[in-house]
Amino acid sequence: MRSTMQDVPLSVGDLVRYGTSVHSRARITTWTGGEPRRATLGEVGARAARLAHALRGLGVAGDERVATFQWNNQEHLEAYLAVPAMGAVLHTLNIRLHADQVAYIADHAEDRVVIVDASLVPVFAPILPRLRTVRHVIVAGGEPGGLAAEGVEVHSYEDLLAGRPDTFDWPEIDERDAAAMCYTSGTTGAPKGVAYSHRSMYLHSMQVCMTDGMAVAQGDTVLAVVPMFHAMSWGLPFAALMVGASLVLPDRFLQPGPLADMIQAERPTIAAAVPTIWHGLLEELEAAPRDVSSLHSVIVGGAACPPSLMERFEERYGVPMLHAWGMTETSPLGSFARPPAEAAGSERRAYRLSQGRLPASVRGRLIGPDGAVVPHDGASVGELEVRGPWVTGSYYGGEDPEKFHDGWLRTGDVGSLTPDGFLRLTDRAKDVIKTGGEWISSVELENSVMAHPDVAEAAVVAVPDPKWDERPLVAVVLRDGAAAGAPELREFLAEKMARWQLPEFWTFVAEVPKTSVGKFDKKTLRSRHASGELEVVDTRE
Amino acid sequence: MRSTMQDVPLSVGDLVRYGTSVHSRARITTWTGGEPRRATLGEVGARAARLAHALRGLGVAGDERVATFQWNNQEHLEAYLAVPAMGAVLHTLNIRLHADQVAYIADHAEDRVVIVDASLVPVFAPILPRLRTVRHVIVAGGEPGGLAAEGVEVHSYEDLLAGRPDTFDWPEIDERDAAAMCYTSGTTGAPKGVAYSHRSMYLHSMQVCMTDGMAVAQGDTVLAVVPMFHAMSWGLPFAALMVGASLVLPDRFLQPGPLADMIQAERPTIAAAVPTIWHGLLEELEAAPRDVSSLHSVIVGGAACPPSLMERFEERYGVPMLHAWGMTETSPLGSFARPPAEAAGSERRAYRLSQGRLPASVRGRLIGPDGAVVPHDGASVGELEVRGPWVTGSYYGGEDPEKFHDGWLRTGDVGSLTPDGFLRLTDRAKDVIKTGGEWISSVELENSVMAHPDVAEAAVVAVPDPKWDERPLVAVVLRDGAAAGAPELREFLAEKMARWQLPEFWTFVAEVPKTSVGKFDKKTLRSRHASGELEVVDTRE
Repeated sequence: MRSTMQDVPLSVGDLVRYGTSVHSRARITTWTGGEPRRATLGEVGARAARLAHALRGLGVAGDERVATFQWNNQEHLEAYLAVPAMGAVLHTLNIRLHADQVAYIADHAEDRVVIVDASLVPVFAPILPRLRTVRHVIVAGGEPGGLAAEGVEVHSYEDLLAGRPDTFDWPEIDERDAAAMCYTSGTTGAPKGVAYSHRSMYLHSMQVCMTDGMAVAQGDTVLAVVPMFHAMSWGLPFAALMVGASLVLPDRFLQPGPLADMIQAERPTIAAAVPTIWHGLLEELEAAPRDVSSLHSVIVGGAACPPSLMERFEERYGVPMLHAWGMTETSPLGSFARPPAEAAGSERRAYRLSQGRLPASVRGRLIGPDGAVVPHDGASVGELEVRGPWVTGSYYGGEDPEKFHDGWLRTGDVGSLTPDGFLRLTDRAKDVIKTGGEWISSVELENSVMAHPDVAEAAVVAVPDPKWDERPLVAVVLRDGAAAGAPELREFLAEKMARWQLPEFWTFVAEVPKTSVGKFDKKTLRSRHASGELEVVDTRE
Repeated sequence: MRSTMQDVPLSVGDLVRYGTSVHSRARITTWTGGEPRRATLGEVGARAARLAHALRGLGVAGDERVATFQWNNQEHLEAYLAVPAMGAVLHTLNIRLHADQVAYIADHAEDRVVIVDASLVPVFAPILPRLRTVRHVIVAGGEPGGLAAEGVEVHSYEDLLAGRPDTFDWPEIDERDAAAMCYTSGTTGAPKGVAYSHRSMYLHSMQVCMTDGMAVAQGDTVLAVVPMFHAMSWGLPFAALMVGASLVLPDRFLQPGPLADMIQAERPTIAAAVPTIWHGLLEELEAAPRDVSSLHSVIVGGAACPPSLMERFEERYGVPMLHAWGMTETSPLGSFARPPAEAAGSERRAYRLSQGRLPASVRGRLIGPDGAVVPHDGASVGELEVRGPWVTGSYYGGEDPEKFHDGWLRTGDVGSLTPDGFLRLTDRAKDVIKTGGEWISSVELENSVMAHPDVAEAAVVAVPDPKWDERPLVAVVLRDGAAAGAPELREFLAEKMARWQLPEFWTFVAEVPKTSVGKFDKKTLRSRHASGELEVVDTRE
């Protein structure tokens, strides 16, 4: 039996129509280093309409891709509103990727237009001539000099908008059509595209505004530090549009000093960024105090939040830091660590340091070492698979089909789920040691080894083993003057681990190789081992 | 371009699966007058699974209708979960309607099974023999005696559930299929059915849980006084399921005394009911104080909240009373009166007394006297039409197509919309005086007349007029000993109203006829006028 409900699609166009009228007084503030640029959401809506007319004028039709190569600023927000609402597809290019990757991604998505910040023209200039599908470049926030390529027209954003109508008749769109694209920049393989739908972004915005989500509401001012080219700035711009929250956009001023100034001056109530940003801000505030009392929630995601960071922020500034987990593939809100109301003390703390609770719309399951679903008992470990209306079911173009399993996304993250739906991640699937049909967590093993007083640092990788499939190899950096050997370290571990988990293979190194963001570079460690560079102690001998 | 998102339907089955597992510890409390009945949501989920098996056992298949004739209690909640999740359609019968209406509605919906509270058997017994499609009656909360009808089997709810499995493999369902039905009991014409979809109830639940909605969250305890047979108890049961809020269900104990006891004992944080309930509670608390400090929000809807009620509740108990507007046809949340964060003082008060702000998912427009859309300027008046994913687009069976206008629902409510999306209703469309292509608000005219010191009460109805289509007739009840005549009252109005709005026709009555809920009975007034019973003064003579 069909319901009698109206068949109204969930669309970005409706959010734009609603937010820019009903909430026209919401403030959109862009940091400039000097006097901030200020506009109301109503003005941004009018400019978004002009941008849509301008893009139509350049021939953008149907579902063509309009890319952005921009910081978080007002013009980027205008593109967020205009492009999906007019029925085209917004493609947010990651300005931090290597030129080869940007060119690959823009070609793969067949971008036709790119909107570039004037401040990013020097970065974009060498990329432009390599783009095969782009026909127009629009330079925002400055003069369009310094860009040229065969068959590409370069425009000034302001010139293009001048004289266009302030309203646009946003078309009705099928809610399952693409509204925006974002590519993952995985550490291995080519970048892969995710195409968000109008439906997924609308539902995700509702989740962000739920009290058990990020609780974004009218009257909030949201400082979106997380880039608008990273998984739609965690959905904050569209959530703000849905309820009329104000936005503070830091443009290129992401250093701790300007961020502290921004918080003191603009008094945001919610701020969202990766842990390193909050770490830098904390150091800054200790060196030169500012008033950050306007914040009622600091959201941290993109990487696990160190407990010390969460505690320091809270103790010194009384602001709760809320842990979120997600991926480009999950729009990105996958889980959010609001502890259960009844939890107190250390239990509360453990909940807050977890990756958070999966909401009703994000179903999770764990696939264990033997390929079967493991229970959500807070102890059993498996690779997390997720399913839901804002979780991707494929990559654009169909790449990497092995990342999908019977309609679920394989996240590549390994951990446990509690009966009350909280996720605790321990490893990336590729860093787990698969041995004799069981898994050994490399992260747990590293922490156990690092607990020994002689050990400065320890990294664990899997090495092939003819009998057990894989076994752990521990790379140890000893403290200056320390002399613990492999048998002693193994003996130390024997107290806390099962016998089959105890590593036989050890190597002592001067330092653990690191990635550009300071994580253990296990790829390099594995290849050094494979090439025989590392001297391995086998404790069985 | 299609998005890459997973195609996951929004369904009650997913809410049941999620809520009863992840939030299995949420508390479901049913008032009994004595020791409350307590269950966890996990237990309710297990019993809902048993109920689904029992219904399958009775032959319920496909989209057949399972009706309820119940108070707000645990068994009713079990039906809320089981029936839609198993793919059948939950039909909540209004226990307060006349037997003729119940029989009409149950036949119209083709109900196959009815679940009846034992305490309502005396009310249901005379209705049952008149039901043409019902084959099974299930009596919950007591012995199944006193019910009999040809071709109908009568069962005990507990006997039927006994020994059934605690889990049910809830099927995947098309999100646009019906999940539940509710009939409006309009004052005129036959009742009309609305069939909510899985999609509409899911989206509505998200709205209820948004911080700018009712802000229902994990850790809340919701006292749902509004009946589960009235527009799905305003969506509170499904919202609670979505986030794991606890529920307090008052069963048949809706008198002020038990409600006050319930609040003191069960410490709800949110409570929802019509104004008369809150009025009664206030009187009760003044007579015999109880601790109501657990409440952080009192939601009032179903009728306009008198300002004095809102003020008294807030001044004496420090609990904000939040005004909501909606209809059975709107699932029902249409608007919610959280004032803008920046509003203060009398402006804030005016916002709170309005019907509230339409959210992003409920689009509103006003159709003026000439059939054209009027501006949202806070002054122009029109009939409200709404459109959105949880607004009905027709009545079940296609009745009353004139209530729909180009895909929008005609609400029959007349008022204005502010530029920031707040609704202020003044009249029912049928009570507006349509004169010379303009409208006169009967409510405003009544208030203006009642401002005269000699007037105790005044009611305004439209009377046919050959030249102007309609003109207002004012029925006045003078205060004891007062002697103001029609010319004097008209003179009094002339200071505040345009000349064309001034009523010519007056009648002086001993009292204004009232409906059973104390509203002006304008239907009776109009028919008395039509039959010549009223002596009319024409001030033009």
